[in-house]
Amino acid sequence: MIIARVTGTVVATAKEPKLEGMKMLLLQPTDASGQTAKGSPVVAIDAVGAGLHDLVLYAAGSSARQTEITKDKPVDAVVMAIVDLIENQGGISYRKG
Amino acid sequence: MIIARVTGTVVATAKEPKLEGMKMLLLQPTDASGQTAKGSPVVAIDAVGAGLHDLVLYAAGSSARQTEITKDKPVDAVVMAIVDLIENQGGISYRKG
Amino acid sequence: MIIARVTGTVVATAKEPKLEGMKMLLLQPTDASGQTAKGSPVVAIDAVGAGLHDLVLYAAGSSARQTEITKDKPVDAVVMAIVDLIENQGGISYRKG
Amino acid sequence: MIIARVTGTVVATAKEPKLEGMKMLLLQPTDASGQTAKGSPVVAIDAVGAGLHDLVLYAAGSSARQTEITKDKPVDAVVMAIVDLIENQGGISYRKG
Amino acid sequence: MIIARVTGTVVATAKEPKLEGMKMLLLQPTDASGQTAKGSPVVAIDAVGAGLHDLVLYAAGSSARQTEITKDKPVDAVVMAIVDLIENQGGISYRKG
Repeated sequence: MIIARVTGTVVATAKEPKLEGMKMLLLQPTDASGQTAKGSPVVAIDAVGAGLHDLVLYAAGSSARQTEITKDKPVDAVVMAIVDLIENQGGISYRKG
Repeated sequence: MIIARVTGTVVATAKEPKLEGMKMLLLQPTDASGQTAKGSPVVAIDAVGAGLHDLVLYAAGSSARQTEITKDKPVDAVVMAIVDLIENQGGISYRKG
Repeated sequence: MIIARVTGTVVATAKEPKLEGMKMLLLQPTDASGQTAKGSPVVAIDAVGAGLHDLVLYAAGSSARQTEITKDKPVDAVVMAIVDLIENQGGISYRKG
Repeated sequence: MIIARVTGTVVATAKEPKLEGMKMLLLQPTDASGQTAKGSPVVAIDAVGAGLHDLVLYAAGSSARQTEITKDKPVDAVVMAIVDLIENQGGISYRKG
Repeated sequence: MIIARVTGTVVATAKEPKLEGMKMLLLQPTDASGQTAKGSPVVAIDAVGAGLHDLVLYAAGSSARQTEITKDKPVDAVVMAIVDLIENQGGISYRKG
C-alpha cells in the first residue's frame, strides 16, 4: 500500500454505471511523514469514510476490488485505511490530529 | 485511477478479434488541473463516450476488464469516467466546459 | 495499452513448456509519433502477426493472458494490435507504410 | 519480489474491516546490499513475523493475496520472506545479524 | 517480459510455507545487449533452471503464478526463459555462451 494525503475530490456525471454513488478522492502520495509529496496524484475510491487532509493508505490493482463497495467494479485504487500513527527509524514520523 | 486528457485516437485494422468495434483513445496523463502533462501517453478503451479534449479517468490492469465492453478482452486500460470537476487544496483545479 | 515499435526478436530454447511455439518480440515503447523512444525495452508475445518495424500496441499484466494463444501462460505482455494511424493534437502523428 | 528494509510500522484504527488484526510494516526498498535506498516507501502486510530492521522480500499486486492471512483482502503488498543471505556478483552482499 | 541478468541468489529461512524449496534468483534488468543495467534489482522464482550470469526473461504480476511450481504462491516474478539470442535493430545484440 502507498501512503497518501487526501487533497480533494473528483466529480464525474458521465461514468461507468457500476461507479454510481462512489466517492472519488484525489490523493497525493507522500513520504512517511505525510509532508513530502512523492510522485503524481491518484484518484481512489473511498472505502473507509476518509476526509480532506487525512493521511491514508490506498491499495492498487486487483486488490482495489476486494472491498464490499468496489467488488467487480472498474476501479484500480481504493482507500482502505486512515492512518493514525507512523513509526519510522525509531521515532514517530506522523501522528493524526 | 489516473487523470488524463483525451488527445487523439488510434486506428488498427490488424488486431486481436476480441477488440473489434472498440474505440481506442490516446490519453495524456495530467496533474489535477488537467493542464500539465505527467509521464507518457497511454492508449485506453472508451467505455463512456469520451470525446477529444475531455478530461477523463482511466483504470489500469485487470480492473480495465470490469466493464461490459471490456470483459475478458486483452486490454489493460479503460476510460471509465469523464471528469466534470476537481476540487484540490481547497479550490477548484478543473471545471469542464 | 502502450505504443511501441517492434525492433527485434528473442530466441529462447530453455523455457517454460507452455511457451513452446510462441513468437517473442522485442519492443521499444515510443511516443505518439512512433519516433521517440520512451523508457526501457519490453519482450511481448505476438498475437497478431506483427513484423519488424511495425508500430504496435501491447497490453501488460493479466490482460496479456486474454488472447487465445496466451491463455493461462506465464506471460505478462502481448502485442494485440498493429497500428495503422494515430491522430493526436488535431493532426496525424503516425501513419503506417 | 523486491528487497526492502523494515523501517517502521503503521497504525490505523479506521480501516476496511477485513484488515482487522493485520500488522502493517513500513518498508524502504533497497539494493542488494540492503544499505542503499531505492525508490519510495511501501506499506506491506506481515506474513512471516518480520521485525524492525529486518531485510525482507515483499510481493506486490494480486500475488500479495496468496497467503493465508491476506486471502481476499484489499492489500497489494505482503512480506513473504526474511532474508538471511544475498549472494551477488560473486560475493556476499548481505548477511543477516 | 523483461530482459535481465542473473547476478546472484537470495536465501531466506523464515518465509511463507508455500515458498519452501523454491530457488530465488537475484536479477538485474538490462537493455537488449544484456550489458547495460536498467533500473533496480528484482528477486524472481526460477522455473527453468537458470544459472548465474544467464540472460533471462522474467514475467511479473499474476502472470508469475502461471507455472507449475508457482501456482497459487505469493510470488510476483518468475524466470520463464533463458535467452539464447536477441536480434535488435537489424543486428544480433546478444548471443549466449
